[in-house]
Amino acid sequence: MASTITKVPLPQVVLSEGFWASRQQLMTDVTIPYMERILRDEVPGAAKSHAIENFRMAAGEQQGEFYGMVFQDSDVAKWLEAAAYSLCIHPDEALAARVRDIVALIGRAQQPDGYLDTYFTVRHVIPRWTNLLECHELYCAGHLIEAAVALHEAAGMDELLHIVLRLVDHIDARFGEGGVEGIPGHQEIELALLRLYRVTGDPRHRDLALRFLNLRGQDPEFFKKHTPKETLGLAFGDYGIDPEDNVYNQSDVPVREQQKPRGHAVRQVYMLAAMADAAATTGDAELAEACRRMFDAITQRQMYVTGNIGSTVHLEAFTDDYHLPGDTAYGETCASVAMAFFASSLLTLEPRAVYGDILELELYNGALAGMQLDGTRFFYVNPLEVHPRISGRLATHKHVLPVRPKWHACACCPPNLARLITSLGGYLYTEDERTLYAHLFIGSQAKTRHADVSLSTSMPWTGGAAFTMTAVHTPGFTFAVRIPGYARNVRFSVNGEALSPDIRSGYAYITRSWQAGDTVSVDFDMPARRLHADPRVRDAAGRVALARGPIVYCLESEDNGEELSCLRLPRDAEIRVPAHDPALLGGVTVLEADGLRLQPAPALYSEDAPAQTPVTLRAIPYYAWSNRSAGEMTVWIQEA
Amino acid sequence: MASTITKVPLPQVVLSEGFWASRQQLMTDVTIPYMERILRDEVPGAAKSHAIENFRMAAGEQQGEFYGMVFQDSDVAKWLEAAAYSLCIHPDEALAARVRDIVALIGRAQQPDGYLDTYFTVRHVIPRWTNLLECHELYCAGHLIEAAVALHEAAGMDELLHIVLRLVDHIDARFGEGGVEGIPGHQEIELALLRLYRVTGDPRHRDLALRFLNLRGQDPEFFKKHTPKETLGLAFGDYGIDPEDNVYNQSDVPVREQQKPRGHAVRQVYMLAAMADAAATTGDAELAEACRRMFDAITQRQMYVTGNIGSTVHLEAFTDDYHLPGDTAYGETCASVAMAFFASSLLTLEPRAVYGDILELELYNGALAGMQLDGTRFFYVNPLEVHPRISGRLATHKHVLPVRPKWHACACCPPNLARLITSLGGYLYTEDERTLYAHLFIGSQAKTRHADVSLSTSMPWTGGAAFTMTAVHTPGFTFAVRIPGYARNVRFSVNGEALSPDIRSGYAYITRSWQAGDTVSVDFDMPARRLHADPRVRDAAGRVALARGPIVYCLESEDNGEELSCLRLPRDAEIRVPAHDPALLGGVTVLEADGLRLQPAPALYSEDAPAQTPVTLRAIPYYAWSNRSAGEMTVWIQEA
Repeated sequence: MASTITKVPLPQVVLSEGFWASRQQLMTDVTIPYMERILRDEVPGAAKSHAIENFRMAAGEQQGEFYGMVFQDSDVAKWLEAAAYSLCIHPDEALAARVRDIVALIGRAQQPDGYLDTYFTVRHVIPRWTNLLECHELYCAGHLIEAAVALHEAAGMDELLHIVLRLVDHIDARFGEGGVEGIPGHQEIELALLRLYRVTGDPRHRDLALRFLNLRGQDPEFFKKHTPKETLGLAFGDYGIDPEDNVYNQSDVPVREQQKPRGHAVRQVYMLAAMADAAATTGDAELAEACRRMFDAITQRQMYVTGNIGSTVHLEAFTDDYHLPGDTAYGETCASVAMAFFASSLLTLEPRAVYGDILELELYNGALAGMQLDGTRFFYVNPLEVHPRISGRLATHKHVLPVRPKWHACACCPPNLARLITSLGGYLYTEDERTLYAHLFIGSQAKTRHADVSLSTSMPWTGGAAFTMTAVHTPGFTFAVRIPGYARNVRFSVNGEALSPDIRSGYAYITRSWQAGDTVSVDFDMPARRLHADPRVRDAAGRVALARGPIVYCLESEDNGEELSCLRLPRDAEIRVPAHDPALLGGVTVLEADGLRLQPAPALYSEDAPAQTPVTLRAIPYYAWSNRSAGEMTVWIQEA
Repeated sequence: MASTITKVPLPQVVLSEGFWASRQQLMTDVTIPYMERILRDEVPGAAKSHAIENFRMAAGEQQGEFYGMVFQDSDVAKWLEAAAYSLCIHPDEALAARVRDIVALIGRAQQPDGYLDTYFTVRHVIPRWTNLLECHELYCAGHLIEAAVALHEAAGMDELLHIVLRLVDHIDARFGEGGVEGIPGHQEIELALLRLYRVTGDPRHRDLALRFLNLRGQDPEFFKKHTPKETLGLAFGDYGIDPEDNVYNQSDVPVREQQKPRGHAVRQVYMLAAMADAAATTGDAELAEACRRMFDAITQRQMYVTGNIGSTVHLEAFTDDYHLPGDTAYGETCASVAMAFFASSLLTLEPRAVYGDILELELYNGALAGMQLDGTRFFYVNPLEVHPRISGRLATHKHVLPVRPKWHACACCPPNLARLITSLGGYLYTEDERTLYAHLFIGSQAKTRHADVSLSTSMPWTGGAAFTMTAVHTPGFTFAVRIPGYARNVRFSVNGEALSPDIRSGYAYITRSWQAGDTVSVDFDMPARRLHADPRVRDAAGRVALARGPIVYCLESEDNGEELSCLRLPRDAEIRVPAHDPALLGGVTVLEADGLRLQPAPALYSEDAPAQTPVTLRAIPYYAWSNRSAGEMTVWIQEA
């Protein structure tokens, strides 16, 4: 049976105050205009984009050569999606006009048969649709579909939807039921088609998504058999993909039989998000079970404490259970964005607080760390440990940059983060016939099926939130609030009167005859926590990470002096929570503790334990690292 | 002023009993015949060598194509050198005849002008001497020179010496004073020419070595300017060397100005050994000071606790101070052999116990770990931490094999180890006009300038040794014995009578009127030690290594169960030394302690510290790891 739970969509949820509202404002005021200038190649010193220019050439309005990755189009698509959300958050006629111009350009780049991919229209090295392994045509189509749905839903602009529907018809004619059997080399279109289906209700859109999912892994040699040798590496140069490596793109095993995360992390998790959406859409219990199994396999065996995933630069991939090296981590920003999608999709299958916990972990840590506080520089790779003499310098650590670059030759991450942050309203609530589920504590005004809700909170710095029903549409509905895994001493009250709600799978359920003006308060303590990794995590042996509420912390040499490996946190040291510092790093609550600094030893190896001096350890939120100097950073701290 | 200290050469020192005599027997009985079969391509399942075959082709006695590395000849040279020592240890007419045959073949492969390098004689892709950066012609010549000197000194066979003298004349005519300025892309010939000079006394041999050393780094762009672009990568394929990277081969700075180890570890340390030999030969104080500085920079900032050096697979290189990752270590066996050469050469400059300590550390650990106990399998890379799901499997850990292979496509290490072990007699003593210096405690009979000495010891398992003067040639000479850094409660006696010798730079000096039959006993305790790394060594933070005497220990899952990262050694736990076990791993003394095993946690990250159960930790010598199962291993153990 299909899930009856649906998300309360973005346009109905406006972030009104606090941590995320200010970040949305940064997106609308700074990041989205900045990215647009990048895409138009107007930012000096940033890596070249050429993404708009490629569309001009495909439209025949410009001469020249295609430039960029084979999936360069997706940068424009993801920016359009973020711009759609931006227009919803903050109407801006000038931006809307520029969006319309770009959409019109995309329309002119579309081929008469509906085909749309500038790489193949401008270059003629490889025929269309012949190399699904490397060529990202379905991936780019997926992002265009998502952008079209976003513009339709969030900005009321349907021009791209019309373009995309012709593109989807073209794809469906080729790959749909009765067409050739094909699967994308990079999963993405599956989740996009399911989004499109929720807008169009056209079963062809759903069925094409299911067909891509269901065909995957049926023939483990699909890419080996169907990728013409003479096309290999042409679209991708140095990044050419091995057609024999069916683990890389998870095409070795049918999706329902996958047991643990393997291969390219973003491919894996985009696919899982699509699987969760498909399970919710169709009620496919086996698919739902595969999603639960994979969620546990990732979050319980292959996820960094910051929520980042992908333990190796080699193929940007998962490695093996408990292998989570900090200084060579990959932890791609996109992979954390994908985990947020996956967790959010799982919440439409069933309300389980662990999904909300991971969604929140990604938002505040794994994903958010990908952006500088000023909104104009971005990490692709998110390490847990950085040393400026090693990171970004040694061949084995070249990918681990200690400072966020302005842009990237492969620019998937920045617009991915922008679309996540600008669409955050859509992640707060789900609802079904009887119940409104609140997943995140983010200051906002929401119009839902059962009630209009005003959410007031000072999270993530103080535990708790107040939900005021500003209007009630379904008297007697059930209000369900996620109790975060980190919350202690949780108290509920309605209109100041304490109550003890039913708790199931980490959600507190309150049913009553709601009146406009009723306020549900949930309050909890957020003591600073020491997090111990499972002792099989070799990189964290003897070490702890500090966290408070949803925020994971790190040490920087800026606050703690150089050579962070010399610092020790005694087991019994109290972790203090000083007053919130609005002037530091855009406003943060730091953590402090009495620690020790080991002194350099007289010999490289000696029988004497190093001498120690007392120091105050000071930890800042992980998301805010590398916003001052290019020094050392570590999430894991050695205990003493 | 030139140093007056010289080594007591191999033929005068016979290992008679104990740890190393049995390993020399393994070399003569097993390893050297095994390697010969490898070189003749007679071992099924081993990587192809083709090294003898290449000489047959160069001699025009065989048709076909050159196979192997551009320095494949050096495998034969190093084997010949080891065979020379083997013949000295254990005369064997059949082996001597086969050696003569191979030498004769080499002679027939020599060109009329003295040139000798099969790659260039068989292949004609690159003209001779045009690409010193990659082509290893001087490196191969160096190894042939060393083999010739060894056959002359240790086996009384001069055929190769005659061949080599013609080769050296050829090289001198081209690169000597008045010839072109050239430096080797891989240092080695410098130390070989200095060895040759000590045999021939021909100043041209010394001067050519000094010229190569002195020219190096004078023009930091030497290889960039003098390597024809069209030859790049031809000799080396995937291993092609970047002519711009003058740090890789230490050609960016004159040798006397080098401050810290950089680039390819074996190149660096072969060069340092030659520098020390040159300083001893010429009395060049600046060169000696550079050697001391570099010795400290390596041993005090960039050496693994096992004596291994080279922290990264990328270019087989040093990285940065205190960057000593265990699981991705390179620690090439050859680099430890090179460090033994360097330390031994430094002992001819001046007697300092730290040189002997490092020499001994390499012998028992960094170098010896490169060979399986049965003498037929070899590590190229020596990690400090291995996990079978990671090591040798992940792309970042492909070089870290958990089991020693039978042979290697790049086979530099096995014969290097063989020549070191078979020539060990030559490392025990140095002497000058007044003093005999004893550096190593290895059961042996030596004929030295001042006395014949019988050395009796049960090292490395029991501390101490007895030196009996079986004949005295210089009554009143000074006998100097190294006091190892690990020795505790050191007692000296002569003929049972305790005495307190002068101690200078870690050597005990005893001067008396020696009589034949006098016995100097040195006894010391060797308690098990916990070694702490300087806290700047990030990989060893919170961890200790165990050692006893010269032996560094490790844990294997074979003895301690899987997931070694779950083990903890309490700070106050006594390290016990059970009785020597002659049946285990060829006879070892293990170490034991009451430790803890952390239990797998219910969640990947949790606030509760993992539960602990008591276990007995059992450590074996590092050199003996991976001789039972292909399990986990770690040198560093987390303290609790």
